[in-house]
Amino acid sequence: MSQHSPEPDDVFAWIDDAERAREQAGLVRTLRPRPASSPLLDLASNDYLGLSRHPETVRGAREAAERWGAGATGSRLVTGTTELHAELERELAAFCGFEAALVLSSGYAANLAAVTALGDRGTLVVSDAGNHASIVDGCRLSRAAVEVIPHSDPEAARKTLATHGGRALLVSDSVFSVDGDAAPLAAYAAACRERGAALVVDDAHGLGVLGEGGRGALHAAGLAGAPGVVATLTLSKSLGSQGGAVLGPAKVIRHLVNTARTFIFDTGLAPAAAGAALASLRLLRREPERAGRAREVADRLYGRLTASGLTAARPDAAVVSVRAPSAAAALRWAADCREAGLSVGCFRPPSVPDGISRLRLTARADLTGDEIDRAVETILGTAPAGATDH
Amino acid sequence: MSQHSPEPDDVFAWIDDAERAREQAGLVRTLRPRPASSPLLDLASNDYLGLSRHPETVRGAREAAERWGAGATGSRLVTGTTELHAELERELAAFCGFEAALVLSSGYAANLAAVTALGDRGTLVVSDAGNHASIVDGCRLSRAAVEVIPHSDPEAARKTLATHGGRALLVSDSVFSVDGDAAPLAAYAAACRERGAALVVDDAHGLGVLGEGGRGALHAAGLAGAPGVVATLTLSKSLGSQGGAVLGPAKVIRHLVNTARTFIFDTGLAPAAAGAALASLRLLRREPERAGRAREVADRLYGRLTASGLTAARPDAAVVSVRAPSAAAALRWAADCREAGLSVGCFRPPSVPDGISRLRLTARADLTGDEIDRAVETILGTAPAGATDH
Repeated sequence: MSQHSPEPDDVFAWIDDAERAREQAGLVRTLRPRPASSPLLDLASNDYLGLSRHPETVRGAREAAERWGAGATGSRLVTGTTELHAELERELAAFCGFEAALVLSSGYAANLAAVTALGDRGTLVVSDAGNHASIVDGCRLSRAAVEVIPHSDPEAARKTLATHGGRALLVSDSVFSVDGDAAPLAAYAAACRERGAALVVDDAHGLGVLGEGGRGALHAAGLAGAPGVVATLTLSKSLGSQGGAVLGPAKVIRHLVNTARTFIFDTGLAPAAAGAALASLRLLRREPERAGRAREVADRLYGRLTASGLTAARPDAAVVSVRAPSAAAALRWAADCREAGLSVGCFRPPSVPDGISRLRLTARADLTGDEIDRAVETILGTAPAGATDH
Repeated sequence: MSQHSPEPDDVFAWIDDAERAREQAGLVRTLRPRPASSPLLDLASNDYLGLSRHPETVRGAREAAERWGAGATGSRLVTGTTELHAELERELAAFCGFEAALVLSSGYAANLAAVTALGDRGTLVVSDAGNHASIVDGCRLSRAAVEVIPHSDPEAARKTLATHGGRALLVSDSVFSVDGDAAPLAAYAAACRERGAALVVDDAHGLGVLGEGGRGALHAAGLAGAPGVVATLTLSKSLGSQGGAVLGPAKVIRHLVNTARTFIFDTGLAPAAAGAALASLRLLRREPERAGRAREVADRLYGRLTASGLTAARPDAAVVSVRAPSAAAALRWAADCREAGLSVGCFRPPSVPDGISRLRLTARADLTGDEIDRAVETILGTAPAGATDH
């Protein structure tokens, strides 16, 4: 093949090489479509409260589609804002303790919106090393100067904020997805207050699980609605739907409406997703004990697995992360669990910041005692050599 | 207020200045929640085929939520891929004439995925100046060298591609949202073939409107499934739902599954949105005349408005863009239309690349003759001085 006129089918030849490299490293990811009624016990999803199939949540989706149509039909700034979106925003803000809220089509879009709208040119954005990919991408898309600090290190946050004279913001997950550990929010907030910096917290894994009745990690820390504090959320985890939101002072929300590209240039969230999230939120308000139940399940899973010699981080929310001796062992362990009827998450490089592979277990609030027993027995029964002796 | 210990409520003081500047420029955007049954005639949405409220599309949403739950519950790589997603991907690919497809939570996410996964370090990405914000952000997030060429300029594409020895891709909208003009796809494709570069085309405004039975702009240009060609789509315009997709060779899709951050680190598309899009797609396959009808409505709107002296670009798809003498006049014109019962889009700086403000009209396939008459009369009856005499 000539360098000057390569055959058209050569254009993606480089992908063959990339695929071979992934195969050799044992890191090929493939999609595994699941049936509507899976025989597997689910400890892999982020459906923390088990609401995605709750009759009230499903009815919320159905009734919204019937009343408002299947799509929002345009940007939220044109035809894409229905009264349903406004209602969801009011109730989300009130529940979590913020002045105002803005709903976007995903949590990813919400993080891109918040970080880029608040981190413009001349701003310093300080970002925790454990932050979610969407925050990292928000930092890269922003025009700000970005400094990544070590994971959960308020002293590093304080020192880094002190290096910059202008506007600054600190951005962090509230609960980190890989290990399920909580960020030092109070100390992060203190570092921000000291410096007059804004604090942006992604409460994707805190909403519905932490705080009074699941009001989230910021509410638990007494920071909900505090001046200078902005939260981002997802509607796709505890609320069992799809979408994301930004919560904060009303003027911050107005600023996003006017400047956030992933809000302005995206179609509004589908009515069914907004309706489902609203139904879940109302259910959670009526049954606040669901949040505590998720934390109890996490504690039970953690207690029983570590008592049997497995190594896990003490869960701060509803994620229990169990260490595996290697990436290959983690992959085999998850496959063996699956074979035995249990679906668990498997985190390997490059999705783990420290290179340690893990099984990731979701402590769903609606797991029964029998299901917890079955999960624990399966995980222990399939544990690879080396998983219990360190 | 001391510089060293500012009051916490000072943190967002800069937003007050930004808000004042927007007010003074007359560029404040606010949300206007619409009721479920709006009395307005809609020429503002992107619901090109009028399917968002079609009973079959709504039933698709409802049945999917009931069967699969309100949310996908996790990343597509963990629990977020259902058989419904796989079915939608197969049918989308087959309809549009590509080997494979991947569904994401929005068209925005699809463009970020395609451009970042194919435009890695060392690649040259050549981008049309009229491209959508999501392509621009994809370019910025990619590790590639990015060159922006003048709008719809294949010669500039050819020359820019020739400057770079390594991998290259050209990215363009198929139909540009502001003026509704079509990209020179055949010439862009020829420039890519000559150079061995990939062509990535966002067919958001072409799917359902252009090509045989609405198969899209690439199908119309004989480029669907061509080697080196990748399409991105949205499910939220002609298909009346929410979500996006990337279509291309199977190995490109596998590469995205393994590398695209907005695919890997996002929750899968809600089943209701996948089900609605699939129902719309099947409806369109059964009633292919809907696509041609949207183009006819656009031609009629264009013909009648320009015959009366208004200035508009000849529509290549289902968008008719009418020039206004100023941003303030455009805003007043749109408000006057609204007052008279007609909802139209209003594009002003900074959303217009050339600084010319416009009314943007959607030529919905399901507009009746009476509705077209009413729309034309309203637009002409409210036209500002200066709109017809240039």
